[in-house]
Amino acid sequence: VCRVGGGLLEVAKLLALKAQLGDDGKTQFVLKTPKGTRDYNPKQMAIREKVFNTIIRCFKRHGAETIDTPVFELKETLTGKYGEDSKLIYDLKDQGGELLSLRYDLTVPFARYLAMNKITNIKRYHIAKVYRRDNPAMTRGRYREFYQCDFDIAGQYDAMIPDAECLKIVHEILNELDLGDFRIKVNDRRILDGMFAVCGVPDDKFRTICSTVDKLDKMSWEDVKKEMVNEKGLSEEAADQIGEYVSMQGGMDLAERLLQDHKMSQSKQACAGLSDIKLLFKYLQLFHVTDKVVFDLSLARGLDYYTGVIYEAVLTQASAVSAANEAQNCANAEESVSVGSVAGGGRYDGLVGMFDPKGRRVPCVGVSIGIERIFSIMEQKAEASPEKVRTTEVQIMVASAQKNLLEERLQLISELWNAGIKAEVMYKKNPKLLSQLQYCEEAGIPLVAILGEQELKDGVVKLRVVATREEVDISRADLISEIKRRTEA
Amino acid sequence: VCRVGGGLLEVAKLLALKAQLGDDGKTQFVLKTPKGTRDYNPKQMAIREKVFNTIIRCFKRHGAETIDTPVFELKETLTGKYGEDSKLIYDLKDQGGELLSLRYDLTVPFARYLAMNKITNIKRYHIAKVYRRDNPAMTRGRYREFYQCDFDIAGQYDAMIPDAECLKIVHEILNELDLGDFRIKVNDRRILDGMFAVCGVPDDKFRTICSTVDKLDKMSWEDVKKEMVNEKGLSEEAADQIGEYVSMQGGMDLAERLLQDHKMSQSKQACAGLSDIKLLFKYLQLFHVTDKVVFDLSLARGLDYYTGVIYEAVLTQASAVSAANEAQNCANAEESVSVGSVAGGGRYDGLVGMFDPKGRRVPCVGVSIGIERIFSIMEQKAEASPEKVRTTEVQIMVASAQKNLLEERLQLISELWNAGIKAEVMYKKNPKLLSQLQYCEEAGIPLVAILGEQELKDGVVKLRVVATREEVDISRADLISEIKRRTEA
Repeated sequence: VCRVGGGLLEVAKLLALKAQLGDDGKTQFVLKTPKGTRDYNPKQMAIREKVFNTIIRCFKRHGAETIDTPVFELKETLTGKYGEDSKLIYDLKDQGGELLSLRYDLTVPFARYLAMNKITNIKRYHIAKVYRRDNPAMTRGRYREFYQCDFDIAGQYDAMIPDAECLKIVHEILNELDLGDFRIKVNDRRILDGMFAVCGVPDDKFRTICSTVDKLDKMSWEDVKKEMVNEKGLSEEAADQIGEYVSMQGGMDLAERLLQDHKMSQSKQACAGLSDIKLLFKYLQLFHVTDKVVFDLSLARGLDYYTGVIYEAVLTQASAVSAANEAQNCANAEESVSVGSVAGGGRYDGLVGMFDPKGRRVPCVGVSIGIERIFSIMEQKAEASPEKVRTTEVQIMVASAQKNLLEERLQLISELWNAGIKAEVMYKKNPKLLSQLQYCEEAGIPLVAILGEQELKDGVVKLRVVATREEVDISRADLISEIKRRTEA
Repeated sequence: VCRVGGGLLEVAKLLALKAQLGDDGKTQFVLKTPKGTRDYNPKQMAIREKVFNTIIRCFKRHGAETIDTPVFELKETLTGKYGEDSKLIYDLKDQGGELLSLRYDLTVPFARYLAMNKITNIKRYHIAKVYRRDNPAMTRGRYREFYQCDFDIAGQYDAMIPDAECLKIVHEILNELDLGDFRIKVNDRRILDGMFAVCGVPDDKFRTICSTVDKLDKMSWEDVKKEMVNEKGLSEEAADQIGEYVSMQGGMDLAERLLQDHKMSQSKQACAGLSDIKLLFKYLQLFHVTDKVVFDLSLARGLDYYTGVIYEAVLTQASAVSAANEAQNCANAEESVSVGSVAGGGRYDGLVGMFDPKGRRVPCVGVSIGIERIFSIMEQKAEASPEKVRTTEVQIMVASAQKNLLEERLQLISELWNAGIKAEVMYKKNPKLLSQLQYCEEAGIPLVAILGEQELKDGVVKLRVVATREEVDISRADLISEIKRRTEA
């Protein structure tokens, strides 16, 4: 199916190679960003700022403080926290001194921060870039350098109250960003472990079987079963039993039913998880968010450090848009089956204790918003919209209609800046009026202050409204209040 | 003098070593951030946010867009841009694939971005962390990971207009941050080069002699001269002539005088630089900022890429505070002589061309605000002030006076969140009223909404003002507008 695409890909590679060679065939400088990374141009930054503002506003609404940690950690801080994914960690070169790695997520640095500062309760958010030497799929918003927006609640509290708040936050953010319909899947590590136990999975295979279950959002059950049986050596019978459970989805009712299930109810762990799911749904009802939340036994999540409730939000609508985009790209065709998750998290009660010299536990629950995929969707929406994205907030351009008025322009703009007005001037001694007006049209600047000999004599400025071309003389004394009146509405 | 301090330092090192050993003497996990880096706690973040907002507001006032680039670049992108400082670049480990380095500043990635995207004019700011394997001096705000706040204007424009705007920006920001008195030193690479030429410095020694001149803010003239003569092999006569020039400071008048100087005027380069300094001062007069700007022939700046005007801002008052702090620390005693620079920049007309396959030049001028030192000062000020730094913006706590009202609290806080109110609730089924009120006092939360059986029956909420302990019953229907009225003033 992909043969034509593959051929085109080859040609593209050759062309890229050719571009690296000069006219004389010598190798030249390669002008690019590292694999899996990208620059953000001003338009992308304007969208990014809007998304961040929505997210930060929500985190602040829920009373979170914020912290920041270094982009790299001691290598040993990250060791043993990510299971099979550890191979994706970026290490720094040993240049003499400590061995360092780029952070892989914001959760492990957060746990290190809590243990190091002996903090036993905090509600904090952290928005920063993390690094994974993964196979990039940039059209799907999967990069090697990407932002995470994390909100976590640390502390010994009554069950499921902070957990429910994390889900409320996901609900608020996805609603406010207006990305189309979404679902939040919920499960619990204890339910998974209990399920594995009652299905006859040997203890030492829990983690690896869990990793395989985690692939259910990308692979069919048949393929998952094959991996369990053929690669991981599970009995066919055990796999089939797991298969029955992981097809179950529901709400509080499903948790109640499973608590009565003759097999599941044999596991204390599973029962503890199921009771907490019930409690969680009770709180989610009070928050009026159960319409989007589904208890889904196939949700596993890869990371090793989760100990209780886990959740993941997926878009159920916007995904169609991006799947269509990806269909054009053969290399990614198989990936387009998966509906990308835009948020995920869970409870990790043991992680801080791994850092504490005395092993003191600080229970934690948190959520991470996967912002890159959200950016991609917002960018597509912005491009489809007829509205132009402004990349500055400039209110007025200080222009002149005649020559030799640079000094007067600089004097006036200095007054405006000092009064807090966002203003620009062209960096030319004698710019043409037309080019000054054109610049305003392109940049979306709404007003122009035009200076000329006559205006200077009269102590006024000609104020021009770019959209309507209307012009009025305003006295210099009234200019600042007039600009504010017209632009700060 | 430092013997006692040195002794204490030894003891501290031993104690740190002991802390790494468990009770049984086995090595334990080291709980720290990498050398030269730090975490920011919520209080520091609140201050950081305030400083960033001031700076961003200024950059936006001047019509700048913003971009972002990856934290690492291809190693070859950074090669040959930083002269002797290149040894301070952090390299990533070769894990198969491209050779990468952490960015050393934001200027080189900006130039790479312009060349890569064939952009010939833009005004952009970029606030991000950069990395230097330097000797950290954290009490002075010198870290291995630190923020830079860069504003640059790229494009072919009339001389000194964008350059003057950069200085106006430094002036605005340092004024608004209220850090005490400051000076902005100005010089020009062409004046330095011309000066070296007329003083008899051989062409191939310009850069290295320039590096030595750059040390004049940390070393006496005698020591600088010694380095020139003994280490760099300059004739004593040439050194003395340089000594005369680099002691000169002034304004437009000095530039005029040097244009008449029988020796300096022999250098075309120097004359071009001096004429531009004159023009710069003319524009700075229109901006009313000449009170803080001084033309200082000793200003050299280390980086290789500057080609024209260069500048550096130093605090002349706050430095006294931090010098006093450092006096307690023997290790840093010699460094406290230097008055830290808080902003610097200049013109670099050749850098973009180094990245363009055809060598097309894009003239650039920019300024970088050195935020870490500013943070240190703001932190010291905040600590000295009786006012408490709030780390959240929570408007109200939803509390209960009796037991078994968790559900009612969750329902109410959900309503508040949905109405955009910043609110918190304690994550306990039955918290004591006193502990809820105490939390508000500590966190600076101004209002409490108290629920009790009676209030629920009456359809009201008891609104308590934390500061005055005043309490009023507010109907549920009016609650949101009442909270807004009382807190969004």
